[in-house]
Amino acid sequence: MITSTSNGRIKNIIQLNSSSRARREQNAFAAEGIKMFIEAPPIRIKEVYISEDLLDRVNIAIRYDDKDEESELLKKCGHKLEKTGYTEVSRQVFKKISDTVTPQGIVCIVERKHYELEDLLRVSEDMSLRILILEGIQDPGNLGTMIRTAEAAGFDFVLASEGTVDIYNPKVIRSTMGSVFRVPITYTRELKKAADELKGVGVKLYAAHLKGKHDYNRISYGRRCAIMIGNEANGLSDEASEMADELIRIPMHGQVESLNAAVAAALLLYSIKGE
Amino acid sequence: MITSTSNGRIKNIIQLNSSSRARREQNAFAAEGIKMFIEAPPIRIKEVYISEDLLDRVNIAIRYDDKDEESELLKKCGHKLEKTGYTEVSRQVFKKISDTVTPQGIVCIVERKHYELEDLLRVSEDMSLRILILEGIQDPGNLGTMIRTAEAAGFDFVLASEGTVDIYNPKVIRSTMGSVFRVPITYTRELKKAADELKGVGVKLYAAHLKGKHDYNRISYGRRCAIMIGNEANGLSDEASEMADELIRIPMHGQVESLNAAVAAALLLYSIKGE
Repeated sequence: MITSTSNGRIKNIIQLNSSSRARREQNAFAAEGIKMFIEAPPIRIKEVYISEDLLDRVNIAIRYDDKDEESELLKKCGHKLEKTGYTEVSRQVFKKISDTVTPQGIVCIVERKHYELEDLLRVSEDMSLRILILEGIQDPGNLGTMIRTAEAAGFDFVLASEGTVDIYNPKVIRSTMGSVFRVPITYTRELKKAADELKGVGVKLYAAHLKGKHDYNRISYGRRCAIMIGNEANGLSDEASEMADELIRIPMHGQVESLNAAVAAALLLYSIKGE
Repeated sequence: MITSTSNGRIKNIIQLNSSSRARREQNAFAAEGIKMFIEAPPIRIKEVYISEDLLDRVNIAIRYDDKDEESELLKKCGHKLEKTGYTEVSRQVFKKISDTVTPQGIVCIVERKHYELEDLLRVSEDMSLRILILEGIQDPGNLGTMIRTAEAAGFDFVLASEGTVDIYNPKVIRSTMGSVFRVPITYTRELKKAADELKGVGVKLYAAHLKGKHDYNRISYGRRCAIMIGNEANGLSDEASEMADELIRIPMHGQVESLNAAVAAALLLYSIKGE
């Protein structure tokens, strides 16, 4: 059991939580919480750290084989721990490596998976394509929620501008509720080039824009389409808006000037899903 | 200029930020930020506190009459300050009364407005009614976003169970982006009684539920309807679900188990708006 916060591995987890550079250099990120551990693909799990308290609870759940919801979750956790192996840490050490106010007691280090836009461009012409393009999203909760919604709406890919908050930021990871393990996402420095490549394979680009002329709900999006969502405070840049085939808008009552970015994205993604 | 954080009025603002009891007892809340100050109904503004820095910037914007976006906002702020009056505070004092990491430099104390469900029940039978019912929403950002979306979707009223986070919590207020001043909201201890009263005037209750049988997008909601949204982690209680006329669900692809509560609410509210 690790009982010292000056342990090198503990220091490293803290780094993975706080530094996007460390995450990049190690090609890994820290995913915290029981549900995240259960959902993480076993083949990508590199290390698991569990607090003494949670380990006790897991062992009790397995020994007495209780059937309530919480015990079922703890048993699932226990069975996965047998496969992955783990390192036990003291309660105090766990507090240090946790990014949450009320830690659940488990963190796993997961290998990042790289997706390339090129793979998407190469798929058969018959395949439908649905892509979410994000420019400069700053709020981790918003980004995580959008990734979660993109999976639920059956989107194939998320393409983010370099100025978007890091998907492997602990807050983003948590708010994806596991979708981070499943939704292909890539960052690009050259949004214009990527947009042109997408257009080259027949993807039509729709930009959510306060000055959009077309009601999002009255559009026939087609089988290959991308939705572009801009920064929370400023919306899409002029440059990005100009890449779009159509500027679309979400009608608003009252004195509301704009919707929350994750809400706007959800309405558009589900409008396409419902087609 | 107030320069001491032990000033009684400063202490009181800190209390209004942190204690729902203080807000209730004083029948007031603190709204922070330039946009919130501009949107606050003048008749309800009781006090205004502005940092020396922001006051300088406002005065410069008015003196030189610059036309850029930021200066326009500062000028609007300045003209409203002339009407409402204000108290200047030092930079350090402002840091103490701010609930944000990067304070904009203005806080106003606003009188709470009380809404009664009875007023809603008394409207002419010809009027359409659209109500958002919330049970136990815990995340301030989610609640604020839902209120903002409710206004945008043209909803008339928000009814919240007592276990829902306080709407006058500073984080909720900020994420409403001003809708807090316009959307009627009331809290109730007796959700069942309120639901029965709504049914009594022809309001049909639809509950967002993972076990719902009806696709939210294929429902004819009717002119008088209410959407029920439950707690982020647990959804609606069994008791609340039983009040509903219909349990509805939002279809989800992939391995997503549920959507973010504010996202689910937005899809349902806009589905009704689009009818």
